[in-house]
Amino acid sequence: MLEEDYMKQALRLARRGLGKTSPNPMVGAVIVKDNRIIGQGYHRHFGGKHAEVNAIENAREDVGGATMYVSLEPCCHYGKTPPCVDAVIKNNIGKVVIGTLDPHPEMNGRSVEILKRQGIETSVGMLEKECCSLNEVYFKYITTGVPLVTVKFAQTLDGRIATADGNSQWISSPTSQRLAHKLRSHNDAVMAGVGTVLVDNPQLTARLVRGRNPSRVILDSRLRVPLDAKVLSNQELAPTIIATTPTADNEGVAALRRMGIEVLIVSQDESGRVDLKKLLKTLGKREISSVLVEGGAETITSFLRLNLADRLVAIVAPKLLGKGIEAVGNLNITDVNKALKLSFERVYRSGEDIVVEARVG
Amino acid sequence: MLEEDYMKQALRLARRGLGKTSPNPMVGAVIVKDNRIIGQGYHRHFGGKHAEVNAIENAREDVGGATMYVSLEPCCHYGKTPPCVDAVIKNNIGKVVIGTLDPHPEMNGRSVEILKRQGIETSVGMLEKECCSLNEVYFKYITTGVPLVTVKFAQTLDGRIATADGNSQWISSPTSQRLAHKLRSHNDAVMAGVGTVLVDNPQLTARLVRGRNPSRVILDSRLRVPLDAKVLSNQELAPTIIATTPTADNEGVAALRRMGIEVLIVSQDESGRVDLKKLLKTLGKREISSVLVEGGAETITSFLRLNLADRLVAIVAPKLLGKGIEAVGNLNITDVNKALKLSFERVYRSGEDIVVEARVG
Repeated sequence: MLEEDYMKQALRLARRGLGKTSPNPMVGAVIVKDNRIIGQGYHRHFGGKHAEVNAIENAREDVGGATMYVSLEPCCHYGKTPPCVDAVIKNNIGKVVIGTLDPHPEMNGRSVEILKRQGIETSVGMLEKECCSLNEVYFKYITTGVPLVTVKFAQTLDGRIATADGNSQWISSPTSQRLAHKLRSHNDAVMAGVGTVLVDNPQLTARLVRGRNPSRVILDSRLRVPLDAKVLSNQELAPTIIATTPTADNEGVAALRRMGIEVLIVSQDESGRVDLKKLLKTLGKREISSVLVEGGAETITSFLRLNLADRLVAIVAPKLLGKGIEAVGNLNITDVNKALKLSFERVYRSGEDIVVEARVG
Repeated sequence: MLEEDYMKQALRLARRGLGKTSPNPMVGAVIVKDNRIIGQGYHRHFGGKHAEVNAIENAREDVGGATMYVSLEPCCHYGKTPPCVDAVIKNNIGKVVIGTLDPHPEMNGRSVEILKRQGIETSVGMLEKECCSLNEVYFKYITTGVPLVTVKFAQTLDGRIATADGNSQWISSPTSQRLAHKLRSHNDAVMAGVGTVLVDNPQLTARLVRGRNPSRVILDSRLRVPLDAKVLSNQELAPTIIATTPTADNEGVAALRRMGIEVLIVSQDESGRVDLKKLLKTLGKREISSVLVEGGAETITSFLRLNLADRLVAIVAPKLLGKGIEAVGNLNITDVNKALKLSFERVYRSGEDIVVEARVG
């Protein structure tokens, strides 16, 4: 095996933690001796042991003198568990190959220094692009305090999410609906505007797939959410946060809170709606590191217009609707050359649909 | 090699004729003896020798007793060249394996009968789906007399072809622009509304690629095309047909005709525009077997709304424009379940864009 193959294996292991490690990163580690993998592990869930410790504990033989391939710089601070560098040193790992540095302010190369000072050969940057991309949620969150925002919608090829009179269910195939639930389970929170709640009354859970339910955040500047909305039920499965403004009716706020629903009072933007930028910061403070914005068109458009979306997932159904409601509304763009740029990262089939995953910008 | 591999080779050869054989079909033929290909050929261009004759003439050794794999039923009538069945019989081909029958009213199994009567073992249906799909233009044209219509547009991911004030060039990448020209060269005619001529003043030629220029058809109910429009120049390269209605100003018609431009007077539809269905029939009578409809939105929408489009090619650029002009306008659909169904056949990258090729219906 090539050295890079060991890192690829570490990346594969790391990905198994998808949707379970937040707000921690996904990390995988492989321990190699005499060109054989003798131990491997990954960070399974938030609060659990780190990849490096799991790999050492799972090793079939003495790891003394072995090489560890780890997708992210090992930690050197006490969090929920003791620092990984200590375990690496204590177990006499001979060499550490790191995918990328951990941008965490308490890290960012500090562990590399510690390891080197201990005489452990340490390198950084193997498959760095892949290792960064794996943890783009963590990287954004840890460096900005703001969750990574993915805008998701299902549209026809001509960009419609509903007919002109709002008729919308279902644009996409059952396969894509499961995919949409999987996406939910990979995010810490899912967000929708109250308009969607009033029209579609969705649950916004990930019930079609295995995996956790994200928190549910409803943008509701004027507190119009009906107390019997499905999104307010099953709080034990998935807590719901109603984001409203200081103009919200006090009695309404109190009624929601009596139901155990959290109500966040966020300042207004100039149009009197929830200030999305401030809301994202507030959610970040609550350790929500990723948000999936699902709709409707107005909410999606706001995130895009304010340049608050990092990623976009468009499920494109093999249909044309013609005149109707577009997924993306007015972005105040009048010059084609000033269009909002995307970068198509993955394009694949999902049932009869196409899924386009893109970076915004 | 498997028998099907020979037919695959015949299909590959046939495809080399793309854009050159119209209104004839593309055909490839492979002659096999003792599990070796001893001759192969394809129909290179309209009026040229047929695939079967080329394969026989190119054979390295005696084709007596050999098996011929041919993607389409050999012809049995005199067209521009003598019937292929005669060549097959005269050269003592032992067995003929045919991809699919030729739906031409003078054929459609007649050659198979002739060959069988001559004691030549003949089978039909190997890779039939691929063999039909290769010649879907010919199949539609020969059975209906109407050209196969492909609607093509370049749009942003959110379905826009221009900003609200019509700013549109260029949505797609240079790679996709070459692809668009290639598409033109594969069609007998390219069609646009006069609105596009007035706004963009396109040439509608295939100048970015090798290959023929299609005829250029402009929908111009009220004869608004300026006499200095680029689409009227270079008639020696690509003839232009102006399709107008009986209400068109006689003097304008005469002026165009004096320039050597053909003016087709087609009856009006109920909104006073060129009746597209009648126009297609007229074009069919002129041996135009395929039409690429390029825009603008109004023209594209008319073809889709009237269910006159067989195929669709959407070039999707990694951009969002928000409010603007959509590729597809009002289709009179109010129920999502009655959306115009597509079937995504091919999805691929073109530069930074995605290309979606679909069948309509």
